[in-house]
Amino acid sequence: MKQAIYRTHGKADQVVELIELDPQPLERGQTRLKILRAPINPSDILQIAGNYGSQPALPAQIGLEGVGEVMEVHGPGLGIGTRVIVPNPPGAWATEKTVPSAGLVPLPDADLDQLAMLIVNPATAYLLLTKFVDLVEGDWIIQSAATSAVGQMVTQLAKARGVRIASVVRRSSAIEAVKTAGADAVLLDGPDLTQQVTKELDQAPVLAIDAVAGETFGRLIGCLQDSGTIVLFGNLSGQDTYVPDQTVIFRDIKMRGFWLTQWLQTTSPKDIGRVFGELTTLVAMGQLHSPVARVYPLEDIHKALSHAMRDNRAGKVLLAPNGL
Amino acid sequence: MKQAIYRTHGKADQVVELIELDPQPLERGQTRLKILRAPINPSDILQIAGNYGSQPALPAQIGLEGVGEVMEVHGPGLGIGTRVIVPNPPGAWATEKTVPSAGLVPLPDADLDQLAMLIVNPATAYLLLTKFVDLVEGDWIIQSAATSAVGQMVTQLAKARGVRIASVVRRSSAIEAVKTAGADAVLLDGPDLTQQVTKELDQAPVLAIDAVAGETFGRLIGCLQDSGTIVLFGNLSGQDTYVPDQTVIFRDIKMRGFWLTQWLQTTSPKDIGRVFGELTTLVAMGQLHSPVARVYPLEDIHKALSHAMRDNRAGKVLLAPNGL
Repeated sequence: MKQAIYRTHGKADQVVELIELDPQPLERGQTRLKILRAPINPSDILQIAGNYGSQPALPAQIGLEGVGEVMEVHGPGLGIGTRVIVPNPPGAWATEKTVPSAGLVPLPDADLDQLAMLIVNPATAYLLLTKFVDLVEGDWIIQSAATSAVGQMVTQLAKARGVRIASVVRRSSAIEAVKTAGADAVLLDGPDLTQQVTKELDQAPVLAIDAVAGETFGRLIGCLQDSGTIVLFGNLSGQDTYVPDQTVIFRDIKMRGFWLTQWLQTTSPKDIGRVFGELTTLVAMGQLHSPVARVYPLEDIHKALSHAMRDNRAGKVLLAPNGL
Repeated sequence: MKQAIYRTHGKADQVVELIELDPQPLERGQTRLKILRAPINPSDILQIAGNYGSQPALPAQIGLEGVGEVMEVHGPGLGIGTRVIVPNPPGAWATEKTVPSAGLVPLPDADLDQLAMLIVNPATAYLLLTKFVDLVEGDWIIQSAATSAVGQMVTQLAKARGVRIASVVRRSSAIEAVKTAGADAVLLDGPDLTQQVTKELDQAPVLAIDAVAGETFGRLIGCLQDSGTIVLFGNLSGQDTYVPDQTVIFRDIKMRGFWLTQWLQTTSPKDIGRVFGELTTLVAMGQLHSPVARVYPLEDIHKALSHAMRDNRAGKVLLAPNGL
């Protein structure tokens, strides 16, 4: 079997290597999965760079999500050929992965690429929208990084719930695409963001979702209703994150952070299963869709990583470890 | 009657003036209170400076809390001479105040100065401790501005609940006083604050209470347990406030603001009454006590304001509008 690993932190396309391993015999209660698809997520790149919330011991496996097919079972388990989400990340950038048989759930017949991207972005978007504020139809929310994969998912999920979304972009060239994607209002990030919200929206947002941080975080806080909530889940700006303390104090603003890995570690398997089930259904119904830039065979992992690390790619880059 | 007002924003001891007004006849349902004591709070000074969450129309009355004695009632009401908390702030810096008879609650026989300071600081401290985190005995909390009136109240209330308190001071000269006041650990604010917490506390705090803001806010966040909460309610440092975004995202930190006025405006009279009732009992039992620097007659209001605006005063400055 082939397995992607990294021995030192650095740029993913420079430090990741493919190694050849002998498959180990299964123990009772284990299932061997053949990995069909596994996306390259920004969180993989950050983890390899050593710039992430968790720091596994090196050398480390990588690949946070994917779809596998049951190829061998020891003891009770699913039928050979059944497709499942690859559990127990990381390690999805490999031809095979041995996992516990318990907890594997058969996937419905749906687009393989979309199912392979079910967790990292859709679950993040779903939880950003549902975990912090009980949104009702007609509420406004505001988000930065609207062109990101999570931003697109947030838009799709918000629209499905009748929640109105104001998307903030950093470049005017992105306005049309974000409008086409379904945003109810598109705003250009800048010092006048609050005034744009007052002008364009009939009421102030109850929830702000921010992956840009820096000054944008403070501006989004200024756009919120009294007692509104902002959730921070990334720092794409790389800047220090400013808090307008008077606004926070006098207007009862709630500021939260969100990291999917932490949620997965602290949430019951039953609740996680419920969220994944809902997302699987949405993908199968075509209501959740992520653009795909390209699918690469595992041997081309360095090309795939270079592509995934480009700023202007048109969608997600995926690996097909057992062929396209 | 005499009433303190300000016609322009500015330094309180320069812009506040005492004016003489003719008492108006009461309408049915009104009570006239003789004001016995009213403290000068930092929030009064900020309001007069125009640097506060609410901006009343000018000229404006001032004085956020105090104790009055019923002197005249039109319709049903409390007996003449009954002592009550002055409701419907501001306006407590006056010899008299006309208020609705409904909702007035007789005060127990307790220290007049302490009762006059029941709301602004004790209620803030009480709500900081109870509204955001369900603290249990043995939990650690951490607070900045430990020498402030609210900081002292937080210490007293935390100890009464068996909660352990780490107090952060900005000057080493304050360490002894804060230790004597009952802090379980005293830490000196600085870049190594997290290391001090690791060394001095057997577990990380679940709640941080911050009135300093600026760099201290981020340092306190670094001291918290995963999923811990920080509540910001002032900016004594006058510095811009930044958050350590990685800590917030990866460790599920909850950041909140608190402003008593906003709480009073959005909370039911029944819930407010319950909190004030608990605090009155604690004051009557001597479990809540604020140091008093000096009590001034209303005529000396400029001297009183100058004293209240000094950095190094030894306690709260109060006004006695109807004599000491």
